[in-house]
Amino acid sequence: MSAKPVIGLLGGGQLGRMLCEAANILDFSVAILDEEKCPAKQVHQNDLHITGSFKDPEKIKQLAARCDVLTVEIEHVETTILEEIATKGVEVPSPDGNGTVLKKVPVHPSWKTIRLIQDKYQQKEYFAKQGIPVAEQVAIAEGSERLSSLRAAGDKFGYPFMLKGAKGSYDGRGNYKIDGPSDLETASSQMGDQPLYAEKWVPFEMELAVMVMRTEDSEGNFKAVHPYPVIETIHEDSICTKVLYPPRKVSDEIKKQAQKIASDVIASLWGRGVFAVEMFLTKDGRILVNEVAPRPHNSGHYTIEAVPQMSQFKAQIYSILDLVPRKGISLSPRVSSAIMLNILGGAKEDSHDRFVKLAEGSSDAFTDVYVHLYGKASKPGRKIGHITATGFSSVDQLASTVSPLIKCMDEIRLERIGSSAKATPAATPKVLPLVAMTMGSDSDLAVMSAGLKILDEFSVPYVVRITSAHRTPHLMMKFAAEMSASTCKVIIAGAGGAAHLPGMLASETHLPVIGVPIKASVLDGVDSLYSIVQMPRGIPCATMGIGNSTNAALLAIRILGNTYPEYAERMKEYQAKMAAEVYAKDEKLGEVGFQQYLAGMQKK
Amino acid sequence: MSAKPVIGLLGGGQLGRMLCEAANILDFSVAILDEEKCPAKQVHQNDLHITGSFKDPEKIKQLAARCDVLTVEIEHVETTILEEIATKGVEVPSPDGNGTVLKKVPVHPSWKTIRLIQDKYQQKEYFAKQGIPVAEQVAIAEGSERLSSLRAAGDKFGYPFMLKGAKGSYDGRGNYKIDGPSDLETASSQMGDQPLYAEKWVPFEMELAVMVMRTEDSEGNFKAVHPYPVIETIHEDSICTKVLYPPRKVSDEIKKQAQKIASDVIASLWGRGVFAVEMFLTKDGRILVNEVAPRPHNSGHYTIEAVPQMSQFKAQIYSILDLVPRKGISLSPRVSSAIMLNILGGAKEDSHDRFVKLAEGSSDAFTDVYVHLYGKASKPGRKIGHITATGFSSVDQLASTVSPLIKCMDEIRLERIGSSAKATPAATPKVLPLVAMTMGSDSDLAVMSAGLKILDEFSVPYVVRITSAHRTPHLMMKFAAEMSASTCKVIIAGAGGAAHLPGMLASETHLPVIGVPIKASVLDGVDSLYSIVQMPRGIPCATMGIGNSTNAALLAIRILGNTYPEYAERMKEYQAKMAAEVYAKDEKLGEVGFQQYLAGMQKK
Repeated sequence: MSAKPVIGLLGGGQLGRMLCEAANILDFSVAILDEEKCPAKQVHQNDLHITGSFKDPEKIKQLAARCDVLTVEIEHVETTILEEIATKGVEVPSPDGNGTVLKKVPVHPSWKTIRLIQDKYQQKEYFAKQGIPVAEQVAIAEGSERLSSLRAAGDKFGYPFMLKGAKGSYDGRGNYKIDGPSDLETASSQMGDQPLYAEKWVPFEMELAVMVMRTEDSEGNFKAVHPYPVIETIHEDSICTKVLYPPRKVSDEIKKQAQKIASDVIASLWGRGVFAVEMFLTKDGRILVNEVAPRPHNSGHYTIEAVPQMSQFKAQIYSILDLVPRKGISLSPRVSSAIMLNILGGAKEDSHDRFVKLAEGSSDAFTDVYVHLYGKASKPGRKIGHITATGFSSVDQLASTVSPLIKCMDEIRLERIGSSAKATPAATPKVLPLVAMTMGSDSDLAVMSAGLKILDEFSVPYVVRITSAHRTPHLMMKFAAEMSASTCKVIIAGAGGAAHLPGMLASETHLPVIGVPIKASVLDGVDSLYSIVQMPRGIPCATMGIGNSTNAALLAIRILGNTYPEYAERMKEYQAKMAAEVYAKDEKLGEVGFQQYLAGMQKK
Repeated sequence: MSAKPVIGLLGGGQLGRMLCEAANILDFSVAILDEEKCPAKQVHQNDLHITGSFKDPEKIKQLAARCDVLTVEIEHVETTILEEIATKGVEVPSPDGNGTVLKKVPVHPSWKTIRLIQDKYQQKEYFAKQGIPVAEQVAIAEGSERLSSLRAAGDKFGYPFMLKGAKGSYDGRGNYKIDGPSDLETASSQMGDQPLYAEKWVPFEMELAVMVMRTEDSEGNFKAVHPYPVIETIHEDSICTKVLYPPRKVSDEIKKQAQKIASDVIASLWGRGVFAVEMFLTKDGRILVNEVAPRPHNSGHYTIEAVPQMSQFKAQIYSILDLVPRKGISLSPRVSSAIMLNILGGAKEDSHDRFVKLAEGSSDAFTDVYVHLYGKASKPGRKIGHITATGFSSVDQLASTVSPLIKCMDEIRLERIGSSAKATPAATPKVLPLVAMTMGSDSDLAVMSAGLKILDEFSVPYVVRITSAHRTPHLMMKFAAEMSASTCKVIIAGAGGAAHLPGMLASETHLPVIGVPIKASVLDGVDSLYSIVQMPRGIPCATMGIGNSTNAALLAIRILGNTYPEYAERMKEYQAKMAAEVYAKDEKLGEVGFQQYLAGMQKK
């Protein structure tokens, strides 16, 4: 291989370690500035490593001198020195052997971005100026004016409001919820001397996050932002503990909007790299940007397995070295759902062992569970590893499958924080539908219920609705659109008489639609059959026998079998069972003779 | 974390490197005996590493003394010393501080297995005794009797036959194909003084391989063998260069048989670990075991991405440390197809650069391409990395997608071996079907062809057959069984009159079946419609309008859209296009008035 660029990395914690794991596979060289035994150095040998603090200006210059590009795994670094390195350069031996020359070393993301992000108040002021939605905030005066400034904030925002340290907070430490005027003095003294700002209370439904890759050309001109999917984060004790892909019960529109906002945020910054954008989804459906991390992030760990073709760590390498192909890059997950659970140090040094052991044995035919350990000693509450589960089912089903893991994790937390504290509810296992059944009238339900029983028997998650093509045409169309954008894979519709529902749904969706003709009061159901089966060319409707919702459900399951092998296997079992039943009947008929057999049938 | 066992590894090449990459994620400690800058040590820092040769008995003992278990990345190691370590032990400081004690260190796989495998002739003699199918072979005498022994082999086996070195051959080096008696003397002198054996020529269709994980309890009792799927290997210049999952055009029975034979082979050996079983599939459909490697293997690299939940390297760690869960472990690929291409050093040091660059930009929405580089200097023909492509399509489609990569690889090979040599044909892009269409009679083809045109328009790979339910019932059943076991996801059947074909096929498969009623000479097609749609409860058949094979194809594509998002996208485009056409017609009707419009229609 021709000479490869050397990546200089400030900080060698778990983010640096996972960056090195990605670099190892591609044989990229990373020179790390951190302690001798830090997590990242454990997995990447390099004569260019430097032992020391990533905050030490002299060491940073030493590192820069031996690298082609500098990046960070943490934003709490000295930006004046990074600015100097990027704009003036560092001294390196002159190529002609006489003295030294100055070498400029690119810093990605830019020192400008890092500097802005270090001040959370300024960060959001900047975003607000760019037209990005953020929570209302106000700076708190320092010194003797602080308390009156706090009171003014309370008057402005009402209570509760959030008091936040503008700098140096990490994992949520440095936030104080002020419930009323009586909290002000305690809060002020507990937050210490740091610069503070107040933020209007955001009653949020959930927290969302999007990782974004940002690229620039060699002149520093903006090229593109590439957002990953939006995920849901769950925080406990002010630490992100759980991440869910996709977020539960969030519409496609909100997801698109979150990706758009995250892309806009990152486009407004400077330099190459991956960035995390943390957001609130408010109870009234608005998205507010909370904060940005200019580096790989806990909320992006799921990408290692869910977006294996371009994990956030590989993306960090690809973006800072400008390797992203011109045609763009697919950041689509290769699985249907993923859940990331942090391994936090427990009450004892080995508290988490049982969590890891449980995870190691948790993979099965349809769920994969991946353990990551960072080579860090355990301390209570410390992030020492994480576990990612992936599946080809819905995130709710996955949460249900890994609920023993979530339970174990919650138990270890309770031991740590003391059993008096209340546990945050775990990811609620609610199942998203794979089949949608609808009918024109509740009078059809008796016929359609046979199909629902089959769906239950095969444990297929479904929704069932009444949406008449003629009495509620708009509801019917809305239903078709919603199902098309959901996890649903097949629509079953029953209708009688003019029986337009199945065909109209087929016109409003790209999903396969199965129609069940229902016998009305006249014409024996032939009217419904013809109406459903004789669709015009272009819009297919899979028609069943009159009143045969059983077969509609069975066909839906055969279709699901293409995507979910477990349903194909269960269909084979079902068919074998049916055959066995007929064989048994045949045998009995041979044994007892037709008269006794018939008598037995009549008794039933 | 509580203290973890230390894995001692003899050899730190690319196999050791990828073992360390797996160990890093789980934070396992690997102590490597090999040169200071070997590929494995580059990605795993450990104070316990030893610098030296993995063939040096003293260094092996030193390594054993600091480890809890020994394993190998290469079988060419000294087994007497491994036997001593496992059965007598190595000297370690006594726990009481006075002198030394002997510590037994388990060796996995067993030194017995490694010793057997080092002699390829003995290896196969042993397998033959276990009832495992191998090619006929005969030992060649040494010294002055060698030439007459070779002639005797020629008489016994006929020509051509293979002359092989019993020991020390690696990557096929040490084999000589003897085309006739005139080759014997040259062959004998070229093979040098090593012990030789002759093997009957096996006219094989392709080479297959299966990785197998073997577990034992702490007493050394056999627990289980877990086979990975069977793959196809392609060798060029006596080196494995390409691996395809699944093998092309190999029946499910052969695949099962290959897994069974590979499991039997490995069950007959000793110790824990992962093993490669290389096999020939002969032109007459027999499987012969060629040889076994007692370690991760080039043919198993595809598992890193295709079986991410348990790559061969993770499996090596899990098996030797006895971490495999009691309930077993899923070794099923999480993708539909994978192709592994070795990166071999080319004519120049940087010849392979363009291959790597091409690969880095080759991922797209439906194909993922992963580059692995081993941190080795390039030499002509040397394995310095590999590229794995994975997809959710058939392996033939994947081969077609990555054909630019295969072409580039073949070009680099041609430059290396000289352009006079002939290139081995690359993986032929033949497409496996996703839809099977059949009809009862060729008179139905005119109607069914409309559906085939739609399948062509959407680039859906299909097979089309004539299989009458009444005239060829056995063929019809065989067809249903074959399609059920193939890549096919939907069956479309057209039939007229009694029209039993769609329903009978539905009875013989678990796949969704779509029926198209065809109008026969009487009854206007209503006979066919009723026959197809009125299936008994239990066996669904998705019925289309009379003669509407267009909609049958469109429904099949909607169904494929669940598994392959590209078809869902194209269906949405198709529906949008249909709508646009109607809007255009509506506009024209408004513009020109109904009379002119009608006149225009009549002209057509």
